[in-house]
Amino acid sequence: MRFIHSVLFLGFISMHLFAENGHQLWLRSGSGKSINVVCNKKSSTLNIAEEELKSGWKGQAGKNIYLIIKRDDLIKGDGFILSDNKIQANTDLGILYGVYELLRRQNVGDDIKFDVCNPAYEYRVLNHWDNLDGTIERGYAGNSIFWRDGEDAFVVKEEDKVLWQEYARANASIGINGTVLNNVNASPEMLTHNVLNRVKAIADILRPYGIKTYLSIKFSSPSMIGGLETSDPFDSKVNEWWNEKAKEIYQLIPDFGGFLVKANSEGQPGPQDYGRTHADGANMLADAVKPYGGVIMWRAFVYQTSEEDRAKQAYNEFMPLDGQFRDNVIIQVKNGPIDFQPREPFSPLFGAMKSSSIMPEIQITQEYLGQGIHLVFLAPMWEEFLKSDTYRKGKGSTIANCTDGSLITQKYTAIAGVSNIGLDANWCGHLFAQANWYAFGRLAWNNSLTSEQIANEWLIQTFKNTDQKSAIFNPDWELNFLKPIKQMMLDSREAAVNYMMPLGLHHIFAAEEHYGPGPWWAPKGIRKDWTPPYYHQADSVGIGFNRTATGSNGVCQYSENVSLLFSNTITCPEMYLLWFHHLSWTYKMKSGRTLWDELCYRYDSGVKQVRHFQTVWDKVQPYVDFQRFFHVQRKLREQSRNAQLWKDACLLYFQQYSHLPIPYDIERPVHELDVIIKEDLERH
Amino acid sequence: MRFIHSVLFLGFISMHLFAENGHQLWLRSGSGKSINVVCNKKSSTLNIAEEELKSGWKGQAGKNIYLIIKRDDLIKGDGFILSDNKIQANTDLGILYGVYELLRRQNVGDDIKFDVCNPAYEYRVLNHWDNLDGTIERGYAGNSIFWRDGEDAFVVKEEDKVLWQEYARANASIGINGTVLNNVNASPEMLTHNVLNRVKAIADILRPYGIKTYLSIKFSSPSMIGGLETSDPFDSKVNEWWNEKAKEIYQLIPDFGGFLVKANSEGQPGPQDYGRTHADGANMLADAVKPYGGVIMWRAFVYQTSEEDRAKQAYNEFMPLDGQFRDNVIIQVKNGPIDFQPREPFSPLFGAMKSSSIMPEIQITQEYLGQGIHLVFLAPMWEEFLKSDTYRKGKGSTIANCTDGSLITQKYTAIAGVSNIGLDANWCGHLFAQANWYAFGRLAWNNSLTSEQIANEWLIQTFKNTDQKSAIFNPDWELNFLKPIKQMMLDSREAAVNYMMPLGLHHIFAAEEHYGPGPWWAPKGIRKDWTPPYYHQADSVGIGFNRTATGSNGVCQYSENVSLLFSNTITCPEMYLLWFHHLSWTYKMKSGRTLWDELCYRYDSGVKQVRHFQTVWDKVQPYVDFQRFFHVQRKLREQSRNAQLWKDACLLYFQQYSHLPIPYDIERPVHELDVIIKEDLERH
Repeated sequence: MRFIHSVLFLGFISMHLFAENGHQLWLRSGSGKSINVVCNKKSSTLNIAEEELKSGWKGQAGKNIYLIIKRDDLIKGDGFILSDNKIQANTDLGILYGVYELLRRQNVGDDIKFDVCNPAYEYRVLNHWDNLDGTIERGYAGNSIFWRDGEDAFVVKEEDKVLWQEYARANASIGINGTVLNNVNASPEMLTHNVLNRVKAIADILRPYGIKTYLSIKFSSPSMIGGLETSDPFDSKVNEWWNEKAKEIYQLIPDFGGFLVKANSEGQPGPQDYGRTHADGANMLADAVKPYGGVIMWRAFVYQTSEEDRAKQAYNEFMPLDGQFRDNVIIQVKNGPIDFQPREPFSPLFGAMKSSSIMPEIQITQEYLGQGIHLVFLAPMWEEFLKSDTYRKGKGSTIANCTDGSLITQKYTAIAGVSNIGLDANWCGHLFAQANWYAFGRLAWNNSLTSEQIANEWLIQTFKNTDQKSAIFNPDWELNFLKPIKQMMLDSREAAVNYMMPLGLHHIFAAEEHYGPGPWWAPKGIRKDWTPPYYHQADSVGIGFNRTATGSNGVCQYSENVSLLFSNTITCPEMYLLWFHHLSWTYKMKSGRTLWDELCYRYDSGVKQVRHFQTVWDKVQPYVDFQRFFHVQRKLREQSRNAQLWKDACLLYFQQYSHLPIPYDIERPVHELDVIIKEDLERH
Repeated sequence: MRFIHSVLFLGFISMHLFAENGHQLWLRSGSGKSINVVCNKKSSTLNIAEEELKSGWKGQAGKNIYLIIKRDDLIKGDGFILSDNKIQANTDLGILYGVYELLRRQNVGDDIKFDVCNPAYEYRVLNHWDNLDGTIERGYAGNSIFWRDGEDAFVVKEEDKVLWQEYARANASIGINGTVLNNVNASPEMLTHNVLNRVKAIADILRPYGIKTYLSIKFSSPSMIGGLETSDPFDSKVNEWWNEKAKEIYQLIPDFGGFLVKANSEGQPGPQDYGRTHADGANMLADAVKPYGGVIMWRAFVYQTSEEDRAKQAYNEFMPLDGQFRDNVIIQVKNGPIDFQPREPFSPLFGAMKSSSIMPEIQITQEYLGQGIHLVFLAPMWEEFLKSDTYRKGKGSTIANCTDGSLITQKYTAIAGVSNIGLDANWCGHLFAQANWYAFGRLAWNNSLTSEQIANEWLIQTFKNTDQKSAIFNPDWELNFLKPIKQMMLDSREAAVNYMMPLGLHHIFAAEEHYGPGPWWAPKGIRKDWTPPYYHQADSVGIGFNRTATGSNGVCQYSENVSLLFSNTITCPEMYLLWFHHLSWTYKMKSGRTLWDELCYRYDSGVKQVRHFQTVWDKVQPYVDFQRFFHVQRKLREQSRNAQLWKDACLLYFQQYSHLPIPYDIERPVHELDVIIKEDLERH
C-alpha cells in the first residue's frame, strides 16, 4: 500500500505536524503554569479536582484558587458558583465540575467571572448498548470497553482500569454522572455473580469521578437465571428474587444507580407477558431498589404488530398509565415517536404525562445517521428537539422546559444518551463523533446551550494547539480553521437529512443495517412496520405518511396547537411535511417547485454539501496533524460516495412512482437502481 | 428487478416511442415512394443497387434514375459521378456506392447535384481480431459473427448468411471493400481445409457487396500445420508451401484479397526468427499471392525488449527496409508510435518511407477508449491524425496526403480499421460505437470529411424518424436532439483524453485490461515497457517522457520542422507535452497555471464533461425510443463513474510525487488510492 503519508503542500507550513490518534479527546491541553489550590477538605474527588487544576491551569501563574464546599441556596444538586479565584459547591463533585468549567473557559477564552452553574438534569446518563460478549449493538467504534469474550472475560486488568478511568474523566469533564453498562436488549447473565463483580470493579473506578453505575436488566431474569417458574411481577417469589438481587448488588456497589428496562418491545419479555401493565412491572423493580435510593428507567419505546400507526403506539400504551408509576420510576422516551431517525418531530409523550418523571432518550451513536462513517454533528438535532414547543402548558412549553423540571414538576429529572464509545483508539470511530459525546454531556448539563457554542468549545479543545511556541500555532487559526469547520459541523446534520430523507421522509433504510438506502425493501412475510414502503407510502399519486385525521390521525396525540400546526399543509413545517401528509408529486412547495422537484433538489443539495465539506476539510490540512487529517479525509470521501448513492437510489426509486424527470440542472444519477437493489438484496 | 421501463415524463410526449434494438444501424429508413430504375446491365451487385434505390427512395415519386456503367477519366477506381437523375461509374460496385451516396444525401437532406465522388483509398479494410473459437481480442460486442466453437463450428447456417449479408450491406453502404476475417494474432488453423471452406462461404456472401475477403496468417504456419521443419522464408519448401496454399485459397475464392501479417511482434513468429528481415518475410508471401492479384499487409507494430524507447522501434526497424518490399506489399502502420492510445502524435513512419506503400491502421474497437462502456466518437481523433502535418514534403504534407497517393506515389493506397463488431444485437455493444464503424468507412472513402459532417450523417440516419406521419417526428428535432447530441459526440473524445490521460500522458492503464486507471502498475519481472511508470515517468521533480535530444530523442524521427516543433516546450502542442517532455510539477502552462494544477483541472473537466453528456442525453428522452434511450443512459452512468475513478486514481497517485494540493475549487476525490490499487491488484 502506497499512501500519501508524506504529502506536504508547498507554500503552506514547512514542518510536519505531530500525529495524534484522537485518544485524548477534548482533554489535550497541558500547561506549565503554577497554581496554588486551597481546599478545606480532602476526598478522592477533590484530589482529582486539584490535580486537574494543577495540570491544566492556563491563568495567571502562582495564583491562589479556593475550592469551597459550602451549601448555598443558589446551588442546585451538583452545581457550583464560579468566580475569578473561587469555586464553591454543595458537594465534592460540584467542585470537580467547577474545575472542569473553569479550565474549559480558559481554553475556549471565555471570561471567568461570577457565575452560578446548575445542571439542567439531575441524572445525566450514558446508555451503553454493550453486550457481555464484547460486541456493541449499533456500535461503530470497536468492541466494548467494559466487556469481552474469552477466558479472561472477568479478569480486571490494569489496562481496563486505565481505560475506565480515562472514560470516567472524560465524562466528568462534561458533567455526565451515570452510565448504564450494558445493552437494553439485556442478557440475564448480567445479574450473575461474575458479572456483578466486574460491575463493582468498574463502579469503583468511576466513583471518584461522580459517575454512578446502572445496569440494563432482562425482565424475565427470575425465571431465566433465578430458577423460578415465572417472572410475573404479581408473583411474590419474583418480588422476593428482585429484592434479594437488589440487596446483593447494593452490597457490592452501595451507590448503584438502578435499572434500565426495555420490556415488551421488539421481542423483549415484559409484564404484559403475564397480563400486567408496564406500571406493574416497573413498580415491582422500583420497590426493590427503593430502599437504597435507586431508580428504574423504564423505556417507552414499544410497538406491536398491529394495524395502528407505529408512531402512535407508545403514547397509546403509556398515557393511560400516567400516575400509576412509583415515584422512583422514570419513563425514558425517545426523542421522536419512531426511532432515532435523521429527523423526527418530537414524541407526543413529552409534556403529556404530567404525573410521571419523563426523561428524553437521545442517540449519540449514529445508528441512522451514517454510523461510523458520516460526519454528522448531532447537537443541532438535539437543539431542535429540546427547543420544540409542545404547547402543553401554552406557548413556550419546550421539550427542555417540560423535562428539566422548570415547567412541569418531576420527582426526578434525567436525560439519557445512547453511547457511541468503543475500544477504538479515538473512542468513537469517527473523530468528529467525539463531538457528539461531548455535546450530549454539555446539553445534559445545560439544555439551553446552542450547537454553535458546543461546536466552538469542542473544536478549540480538540484541535487548537494552545502552546504558542509550537510551530502548529497559527494566528489565523480562528479564521482559517475554526470558522469553516464549525460551519461544517453545524450544517452536517441538515446535509445528512437532505441526502438521506428530506421533507419528513423517514425509515427508508436498507434492510436491518440502517446505513444505506433501501426504500424498496419489503420482503414477503416481514412485519409491515419494519419496511420502508410502510413509511414513505409512495404511489402513483404521491408520497408521505398521512397522519392527519383522514389518515392515522397521529396528529391528535399532540396538544391542540401543535396538532393544528402539523395537520395543515400550509402551516406544517416542510421539514415534517411527509411525516404527516401524503401529498401529490406535483404539490406546490413554498419554493414554488413541485414536491417532486423539491425532493430532487434536496437530495442533490445534500450531496453537494458533503462535497463542500470535503473541500472545507482539505483546506485545513495545514492546521491538523497528519493522522487525524487523513482519518477525517478518508471518512468524508466515503460519506461523499454514500451520499451520492442515497440520492441516486431514492430518486430513481421514487421516480418509478412520480414518472417525472429529475430537473436537468441537477447532476444525473450515476448508479443503476436495479444494480443497487440487487447488491442490497445480496447483502441481506 | 424493478426497472423504470414505464417512465413517461409528463409534459413531454403523450405516447410510447417504439423500441429499437439498434440492429438496423444507420440503415433504418424506408419509404413508400416509387421510382423507375433504368440500367444497361445486369449483375448481382447491380440488383442490390436497384433494390436499395427502390426501397430507400425519398425523392420525387415515379422519377427515372439511370444507372450507367461507362468509363470516365474523372472516375477513379470504384468512384462514380452523381447527378440529379443519374449515377455513372466504371464498375458495378461504383454504381452501388453511388446509390448509397444518393440515398444518404436524401436522408441527410443534402443537395443531389453533379458531383464526382472518388475514394481516397483503394483498399478500405476492416480488421477483425476474431479468433477461431469465436472470442474476439479486444472485442466488446459479444462473440464473432464469423467464427464459433463447438460441433457446429463449420456449419454454415441460414442465420449466419443473413448476418453476413447484413454485415456486407452495412459495409458497402459506407464504402468498405475489404475485411480481414481473423485476429492478427492468428491461429495456424486458419489455413486448414474446414476453415478455408467457411471463408469461401463468407466470401460468397460478401462478394456482391464488393467486399473482398482477407486472412491474417501465422508466419510459422508451414512448420506448424504444413509438416515442414522450418518456416524460413529462404527455404524453398516453405516458399512452395505458401505458393500451394495461395493456389488452394484462390481456387476457392478467386477474388481473395490477400494476407495480413503480424510478425516478430509481441511473441508472434516472423522472419527474424530465421535471421531474415521483415522484407524477406513479406516478399515471400507477396510472391505467393502475386499471380492472383493479392496483396500482403505487413504490420509495422513491432517492438523488442530493449533499452530503446518503444516509440522509436517501428521506425528503427522499418526505415532501413524502405525500397526492399515487393510492390504488392503494403506496410500497415498504426496511427501513433505506441498503441492506439487516447491521444498520440502520429507515427514518424508516415511520409518517411517513400518507396513503399504505407497504409494507416486505426482502431475502431475502443480498446483504450472505454471499451464497450464509454461513449467516445472516434472521428475527431482520426481527423486529428489525418490532418497532422508531417512536413515530409513541406508544409501541407498531412498524413492524409502522404497516404492517399496525392502527395507520395504509392502502388497501392489503403487504410485499415480494427473492427468493433460482434454478435450483440446492436453489432457494436454500445449504440454510439456504431458511429465509429460508420466514421471509419466514411473517412476511408473521403479522408477530408469533418467529424461534424460524419456525426451529422450518422445521427440523422440512426435517430431521425423521417416518417412525418409518425408521432415521433418532431419539428424541433434538429434543435433539441441533433444539435446537442452532435456536440456531445464531437466533445466525447477530448473528454476521454481529459479524464484518462491529458497533456500527452499515455499508457497508464490498469494491468492488461486497458480500461481503468493503473499508473502504479509495475509488478516485478515484467518488461518495463509494459508498465505505466515507463510511460509517465512521474517523480518528485515532475512528470512526462523526455523524447527530446536530452532524452530518448524520439523527436529525431520526425521531419526537421516537426522535430523542432515537438522539441521545444514553447511550441510543442500542450496536448503532446508530456509525450515529449519531462517537466517539473510547477512548470508554467499557457493557461498561467502550474503543470500540476493544469493536470488537475484537465482530469476534473473530463469528469464534468461526462456528467454534462448525461444531462444532454437525459434531455433527449422524448426523441428516442425506450430501448435505445435506456441503453445509452445506462452506459453513460457507468462512464461517469469510471471517469470519476480515473480522475481520483490519477490525481491521488501523481500527488504522491507532486506533493501539491489539488486546487480547492475542484471537486475532491471520493475514492481512496490504496483501495483502488488493492482492488486493481486483486483483479489481475
